[in-house]
Amino acid sequence: MKTKVFYCCLVLFFLGFQGYVDARLLVESKPDRDDTAAYARWLVSQNSWGILTNVVSFSDGVPGKGTGVPYFYLTTLDPTARNALKDHRSSLAISEYPLGTCSNADPESPVCAKITLTGRLVLLEANSKEAEFARTALFTKHPEMKGWPKGHDFQVFKLEIEDIFMINWFGGPKPLTVDQYLKYKMNIFALDK
Amino acid sequence: MKTKVFYCCLVLFFLGFQGYVDARLLVESKPDRDDTAAYARWLVSQNSWGILTNVVSFSDGVPGKGTGVPYFYLTTLDPTARNALKDHRSSLAISEYPLGTCSNADPESPVCAKITLTGRLVLLEANSKEAEFARTALFTKHPEMKGWPKGHDFQVFKLEIEDIFMINWFGGPKPLTVDQYLKYKMNIFALDK
Repeated sequence: MKTKVFYCCLVLFFLGFQGYVDARLLVESKPDRDDTAAYARWLVSQNSWGILTNVVSFSDGVPGKGTGVPYFYLTTLDPTARNALKDHRSSLAISEYPLGTCSNADPESPVCAKITLTGRLVLLEANSKEAEFARTALFTKHPEMKGWPKGHDFQVFKLEIEDIFMINWFGGPKPLTVDQYLKYKMNIFALDK
Repeated sequence: MKTKVFYCCLVLFFLGFQGYVDARLLVESKPDRDDTAAYARWLVSQNSWGILTNVVSFSDGVPGKGTGVPYFYLTTLDPTARNALKDHRSSLAISEYPLGTCSNADPESPVCAKITLTGRLVLLEANSKEAEFARTALFTKHPEMKGWPKGHDFQVFKLEIEDIFMINWFGGPKPLTVDQYLKYKMNIFALDK
């Protein structure tokens, strides 16, 4: 019976992760845990969703070219965007667990990294160059977004990061400034080279 | 090359989810989306982690006997527990995405459910019956917790739910009272029967 459960879950995982696997053809290997900026940027770039009041999708760039800045495609039909227009203070929490790189560690274990980016969630001017960049970043990692109903008035937001809290090993949160995080250059390699 | 990526990810997924698969031998099939209480209870019982300021593990009971009440095993070395002791207001956000049951839907799509339980995060008296129940619930779903360092003073907390916000289809959040949620009896079946 365990075998049946195994295959059942195998199918479920691949239904859920198929799009995701394709989107990860450009990958970065998991950085050394003491290279704090590298680890933080990897965690943000490799993930495609997190919690920002509610569960939301995000993208920090096209695969392999993450900028570290999370962009969102939100509708004011959802309270996350409505709240942001009234009070910009916001934070995005992301876990390493869904990446499948925590081995057998529990999601709460410090060995399984987690990062919280705190800052201001701001609406981008729809015709700006940055909004255009953000739409490409979002639609590449989340192809479904392109077809979301026009009538729902989805708009592009970004999180202007003011503080970073990351745990990726024992010993408490790692010191990491926003500047160190944003200036870090990722060492990307393409798997199909 | 795509084949290599496929197998590489296969291995990563199973390293990460092995414990989880074992813990899901008792499963409940995904409820009808209009059976709001059933869906909410399923989402909470089947998941083992969510965002409560930070990424934390939780359990609402031993597998197949979820109570709907999320219990946590937290140390005041982490700000989540420290904050809770000062200000009890808290919320736990959980996504259906990691369960692998959203088919190809994007994590932000309303088709991929998300639930936010808002309420008071309270510390349980260590010798109480409820704390004993909670430890069993937690250690069954998160066996690693039993071995977490005694010196870190992990304690059992619970979220006293005051409000529920769930989206599990188009049409906005579903109306669901805390009473409806807690009184719902889950229809569990054992896969190995």
